Parts: sequence; C-alpha cells; structure tokens
Amino acid sequence: MTTPGTGRLYGVGLGPGDPELLTVKAVRLIQAAPVVAYFAKAGRRGNARKIVDRWLLRTCEELPLCYPVTTEIPFDDPRYAALLAAFYETSADAIAAHLLAGRDVALLSEGDPLFYGSFIHLFVRLQARFPVTVVPGVTALSGCLAAARAPVAWGDDVLTVLPGTLPLAALADRLEGCNAAAIMKIGRNLAKVRAALIGAGLIDRAIYVERATMEDEIVLPLAQKADDEAPYFAMVIVGGVGRRP
Amino acid sequence: MTTPGTGRLYGVGLGPGDPELLTVKAVRLIQAAPVVAYFAKAGRRGNARKIVDRWLLRTCEELPLCYPVTTEIPFDDPRYAALLAAFYETSADAIAAHLLAGRDVALLSEGDPLFYGSFIHLFVRLQARFPVTVVPGVTALSGCLAAARAPVAWGDDVLTVLPGTLPLAALADRLEGCNAAAIMKIGRNLAKVRAALIGAGLIDRAIYVERATMEDEIVLPLAQKADDEAPYFAMVIVGGVGRRP
Repeated sequence: MTTPGTGRLYGVGLGPGDPELLTVKAVRLIQAAPVVAYFAKAGRRGNARKIVDRWLLRTCEELPLCYPVTTEIPFDDPRYAALLAAFYETSADAIAAHLLAGRDVALLSEGDPLFYGSFIHLFVRLQARFPVTVVPGVTALSGCLAAARAPVAWGDDVLTVLPGTLPLAALADRLEGCNAAAIMKIGRNLAKVRAALIGAGLIDRAIYVERATMEDEIVLPLAQKADDEAPYFAMVIVGGVGRRP
Repeated sequence: MTTPGTGRLYGVGLGPGDPELLTVKAVRLIQAAPVVAYFAKAGRRGNARKIVDRWLLRTCEELPLCYPVTTEIPFDDPRYAALLAAFYETSADAIAAHLLAGRDVALLSEGDPLFYGSFIHLFVRLQARFPVTVVPGVTALSGCLAAARAPVAWGDDVLTVLPGTLPLAALADRLEGCNAAAIMKIGRNLAKVRAALIGAGLIDRAIYVERATMEDEIVLPLAQKADDEAPYFAMVIVGGVGRRP
C-alpha cells in the first residue's frame, strides 16, 4: 500500500540517556537521514535531541515536534486526550510531507521505540502509508537495572512492568505475588507506589532510580528515600529472586 | 571490599543478534578488554561469540565458558541444578584468575546482562570481590517487538514477561486480564503456551517470533503457525492496546 518513490521512516531507539548507549545502527541511520525528527516540550530542546548531540551531522534538517502539553493537565482529563490526538496528527502530517517528497526521516525515540515510546503514536498513523523500519534500542528499564545492579528476572521469574499512573488498587493487585517488578512513570505517583509496595510486602526489595546511565544518576533503596519528590521518568525496580544454581 | 590492583569485570550486553545492534559503548569496551569471555555450548562457537565476530580484535585472549549441559536434562531435575552450579563456580574462578592478575574481563551477554541473562549467575558470585560495570544492551524482547512491529506497551498498559517454562496453570493465571505480554523461552513449551493463550482469549493477538533481527528471522501470527516446533530462544508477543490519543 506504500507509494513508490516515498521516503522511509526510521523509528530509532536512543537508549536510556548515555549517548554511548546508542547502537551502532542508530548512529549510522541518524547520520544518513536527511531529516531528523524528535519530540520535545515547547521551548525546550528535549532530552532525545540532547542525547544525539555528539552524533548529529550539521547537514541534516531538524524537525522538532513540540508537545502542546505535558504534565499541566492530568492524563485522564478529556482535554488532554484531545490536545494530544491533534498534536500527533499534526506531527504525522509534518513527517508525511517529507516522506512524500522522497526524504527519509529518522524519528528519535528515547529508550526503545515500541516499549512505552511516543513513537508508537506516529507509527500507528504512518505505517500503512509509508515503509517503516523500527530500530530497537536499550530500554530505560535496562538502564535502571544496570544502575541498580539488580537482576530483575532470572530463571523462572515473572516480570511485571507497571505504569505508576495506575490507581492504587490496580498497582496493589498487580504487585501481589509477583517475582520481579518495574514501575515506570513515577513522577507525582511516588507516594501511591510506595503504599502499594508496602502493602505487597516488597518495600525492602524496592530500588529507586532516577536518570539512569546519565551523569547525575541517582540510585537508592526506596525505603531510604525520605521524600516523595520524583521526576516523571524515575523508576522503581524490585529485583527477582530466581532459581539460583 | 574489592582488592586494589585487580581488573574490572564488564558485563556487556550484545543485543538481540544483529551485530549492528551492539551499543557504541559495548564495541569500545570489547575492543579495549584484554580478555573476552563468553558462554557457549561445548563444541560450538556459541551465539554470543558469533555476534561480536566483526568487532573482536585479534589481540584479545578469548575465554569460552562451555556449558556442561543445556537442554539434555530438564531444568527441574536436581542433577541439572548441581551441574550448573558447579559450572558457574568454575567459570567464576576462571574469570577471577584474570581479574586477580590485574586483567579486565569483558563477559559477553546476549541481550541485556541483567534481563534473564546467564551473566547474572557470575555477577552474584563475583560482585563482592571485584569491581563490576554492567553495560545494558538491547533485549531480545525489544528485538522481537521491532520484528513483530508490535507495540507491547503504551499508555497505561501493564506488560507481563513470562518464561514459557512455567506450568500451564501458572501461565494461564498470569495471562488472565493482562494488557500486553511477552512469553520467552518457548522451545518445547509451545503447545502449552498456545493452550494458555487460547484459554486467556489472547491467541488472535499473539505473534510468534524466531531469531529476531537476524538474517533468518521468522515472524508470523501464532494462530497461523501449523506446528509446535520452536527453538528455545523463540518468543511470543501479545501487543498492547493502550490509551490511544
């Protein structure tokens, strides 16, 4: 169904933050792409753009896609969904214009494109019309495991990955009896996440990680974190116990 | 507690199989290490060694760690645990000998070292005695998502990662009401995994992936796979449905 002569969209995973954690393939494709697109908060350069700073060639055209809203409106507010839907449509159109003109576009994606990435929203809008290649990247989760030095899963461990945005009851239910867990999107949800972990008897195994693999990385047992202040991209890891030959 | 003058152990994630999916950091560390260790089946070169073939310098010393057994004895047989425990001890000793002599060792790990990786077994044996750096890699899971073009998790999706080695009842229980799932370690477990997915009403969303990101990659809807033959490292993905603005 794709039109001959159009460009190709590359969804390029950037890894968790350390610029050296891009894959060799990601670096090659970013340097070959005539157009490099990335999400950013309006008025900011954005984390994705910052991660590729040392790799980006000056010859490419940059296409920043600026969120109309990030955390100012709650996720469950209908206005949030409407604003974001319109933003993703506009962004898809901006990328489509380049692809129709025969130019390849590398869309940068922090972590891995298909693992909780914003890339997904453009992928579902463009994949039927254009050729798309997804280049997997190191997830923020793997970055946090390395920082926390915690094997989250080994042997027959079951790993549960939860967004901290879930209600307390859902978090508690999912944590019940789980072997290993990663709770993403902490931000304003830390007090709730802490309560769910205490309820599930997992608080002593929980490790709090902020800005994993970056220069200002923070790692500490959650039980030792005195406040409930956390950025959106912080994570809580509960390591596995596994079969240990 | 580590001794001054000893070498450093690097647990280096290699990604899912495509040699271009090593990170820039992984390539740098593998080329700088005087000793490169890797797991392999006895008499074989092993997949990890094969992935780094284009990157390895001839100046390094190679330290293959050969499994005494892989799938010949069931995992739940006490002999399996005993053989593996002895093997991990011997392997840890072989690495420790280099570290004590002041030589850094890069221990190759397919996928991500702390995400269901054999690295974990040596990490827990060596981390108290020697400095260790974990270099996260692209997981086999991310490789499968890219191959299947399936966003496993977006918005508030919960992702459950399950080993196919679990009993049917446990698989069925974990799949019940889950948003997105990845079932690893398929091998001889495919018929059981299929039954669990049918029971949970997820069979029509299940995608079978074999050798993701490699030249002979296979991707097809599980419902269309006619037989139950699968290698150990095959995976089944159930994509998320997510909040979709």
